[in-house]
Amino acid sequence: MTTPPALAEQARFVPGKIITVDFAEAATSPSYDIVIGHSILTEAATLIRLRLGARRCVIISDSIVEPLYGARLEAILVAGGHTVLDTLVFPAGEASKNFAQLHELLDNILTLGADRQTLIIALGGGVVGDLAGLAASLALRGLDLVQIPTTLLSQVDSSVGGKTGIDTACGKNTVGTFYQPRLVLADVTLLDSLPARELRAGYAEAVKYGLISDSAFFRWCVTHGGQLLNGDSESQIHAIGYSCAAKAKIVSADEREAGSRALLNLGHTFGHALEAATGFGNLLVHGEAVAIGILMAFRLSVRLRLCSMRDYDEIHAHFASVGLPTKPPSFDYDIPRLIDLMKQDKKAEGGDITLVLSRGIGQAFVCRDTDIRALTNEDPTGLITAVWREFTGS
Amino acid sequence: MTTPPALAEQARFVPGKIITVDFAEAATSPSYDIVIGHSILTEAATLIRLRLGARRCVIISDSIVEPLYGARLEAILVAGGHTVLDTLVFPAGEASKNFAQLHELLDNILTLGADRQTLIIALGGGVVGDLAGLAASLALRGLDLVQIPTTLLSQVDSSVGGKTGIDTACGKNTVGTFYQPRLVLADVTLLDSLPARELRAGYAEAVKYGLISDSAFFRWCVTHGGQLLNGDSESQIHAIGYSCAAKAKIVSADEREAGSRALLNLGHTFGHALEAATGFGNLLVHGEAVAIGILMAFRLSVRLRLCSMRDYDEIHAHFASVGLPTKPPSFDYDIPRLIDLMKQDKKAEGGDITLVLSRGIGQAFVCRDTDIRALTNEDPTGLITAVWREFTGS
Repeated sequence: MTTPPALAEQARFVPGKIITVDFAEAATSPSYDIVIGHSILTEAATLIRLRLGARRCVIISDSIVEPLYGARLEAILVAGGHTVLDTLVFPAGEASKNFAQLHELLDNILTLGADRQTLIIALGGGVVGDLAGLAASLALRGLDLVQIPTTLLSQVDSSVGGKTGIDTACGKNTVGTFYQPRLVLADVTLLDSLPARELRAGYAEAVKYGLISDSAFFRWCVTHGGQLLNGDSESQIHAIGYSCAAKAKIVSADEREAGSRALLNLGHTFGHALEAATGFGNLLVHGEAVAIGILMAFRLSVRLRLCSMRDYDEIHAHFASVGLPTKPPSFDYDIPRLIDLMKQDKKAEGGDITLVLSRGIGQAFVCRDTDIRALTNEDPTGLITAVWREFTGS
Repeated sequence: MTTPPALAEQARFVPGKIITVDFAEAATSPSYDIVIGHSILTEAATLIRLRLGARRCVIISDSIVEPLYGARLEAILVAGGHTVLDTLVFPAGEASKNFAQLHELLDNILTLGADRQTLIIALGGGVVGDLAGLAASLALRGLDLVQIPTTLLSQVDSSVGGKTGIDTACGKNTVGTFYQPRLVLADVTLLDSLPARELRAGYAEAVKYGLISDSAFFRWCVTHGGQLLNGDSESQIHAIGYSCAAKAKIVSADEREAGSRALLNLGHTFGHALEAATGFGNLLVHGEAVAIGILMAFRLSVRLRLCSMRDYDEIHAHFASVGLPTKPPSFDYDIPRLIDLMKQDKKAEGGDITLVLSRGIGQAFVCRDTDIRALTNEDPTGLITAVWREFTGS
């Protein structure tokens, strides 16, 4: 395995081992470790006890993950000296990220007799992390949280950084908190149970980190992406470790997304609009929407003469080679509505669209659509419309 | 007006003016100002604009306060260059601190088209501050919040420190966040509309600060309490300023109540149990319960030979002289249940009761009931029961 040069600079990163998300400079939250590797679940009780002591725990999981790993995690925790008050299970899927489900979880946590020393353990993918994280941040004004992400998407992305949330009629994650976990346990063994499509979708978020700021990691992905998706756990550990270290660096500098954290949204403004238009359903899952959104953001950058067509083609070729979608699925798209959806994004301000554009692979930057007008004297809505037309064929 | 010596040390405190709650050392939250004085409401637009810029605002108030000051605040904000998206009003009273009301508020805030630059303004007493503060902390993962407390209780206490919350079947404020406002505007002119009973109840929380750590401020209260409660605004400004500075000092050192912040709960463990037993109703309002709880905590301290009976008598005499209750209202109390309620307090851990006891006026300290056994070899439950018996006559 080649180690990208940028990694050497990230002294905290030890491949396949432990990454510390260090808030020491910002001091906005306590620092915490992300432990990545094989068979981490088996060691969960010890890893938790060494950092947080023996605890009374409430496990929160969903109807897909709990039958796979719930009983095993309970047994491991109990054998390791912890108490498990209960495992709370909700129906799998984004539709559970609603107010009623949050209310039910909080009532259950409190009724179990949780006190401020009770530990919430989120066992599952992004939906479990978002919902359990929000419940943990609200119960008794904040209980300690351990994330055990079980999908590649949540291992490379959503389990790190402390965003929690539920959806409302006004959009995805429009209600939530910034709330850091005390520990993240990323066990690549758990990825064996993940459908290939979900693995690919998660992989797109890992590639994103190379595209944002490190072309060497993108080259590594081009070389190793195929074997990673074929289940090679060494490559998985490397990519997860790299992604977590990259995200940790950005998040610890800007926990509440006042500035540079917005870079993490590369591909997300286009991607969220696509997800919303197609109903957040099975037609297009989040990581796929991000992959398409990344291509659209680079295409817009090419149209703005910020980035070369060669860079765009390279990304397109890599996504295609690993089986990620490179254009939106067939659907009756309404382009003015897609642009409205981009304007309704949480990061939008006063009707402006916040975009992450690029000067090339590894050179992303944040700008508003109004900056486009100032920079290029071109109509930003016209340019964005053109990109939508090109990708949707509408 | 005599200035207590302890005040001179609190360099940030300028009587009748501005106190900065400085999180610089902890850096867990941005610092913010508390502006205290006459006719502050009239200056609200400027005070907000100078710190936070011209904003799109959502005012949140209740059915008692909004008819008194809502239209005036809206007009002041608009005249001062801000936009008011709407004023959201909910039924006055603790019963509104529930999940359904929170859900409704969040839906309304989002439906109004709030973005991350939208400002939430809480106009009202503690219930408005708790509920609007929680909604602000959750909408789009946190909107800026300005507190305009309209009761003495909220001016001296709940508007500072960033606790938000709603009640559940498992207790008061069992769901909530730590979320600091960006600015607090405490206008003593608004206290003119406050019933005398509410003014007294709020006053008890101000006296508390002297009892915790500053006997000189307690002496000031003994001398000036009567005129403060008769509406003398100089005394009100002084007491609010002193209380906010004292609370700011404690909160900025311990935002999330890991340690010394628990001192602020002097009188609250007994007091909350009394409120819960009497149904959080009109029989006993929060500040009255705190006054009685303070006396009970000092009485327990006397029984433990930590504090002199003379100190207890002095506090008792002062509360009686200003018309605060010195014992619980007539009610069919069940002492084992009262003790259970103390054990269910949010600050309790593993069934232990966290108490704030005192070695004399201005010398409060935190201890657990189990520490009592270690210190004195006496049965803590027996001692606490004896105090309950003495006060309730049961």
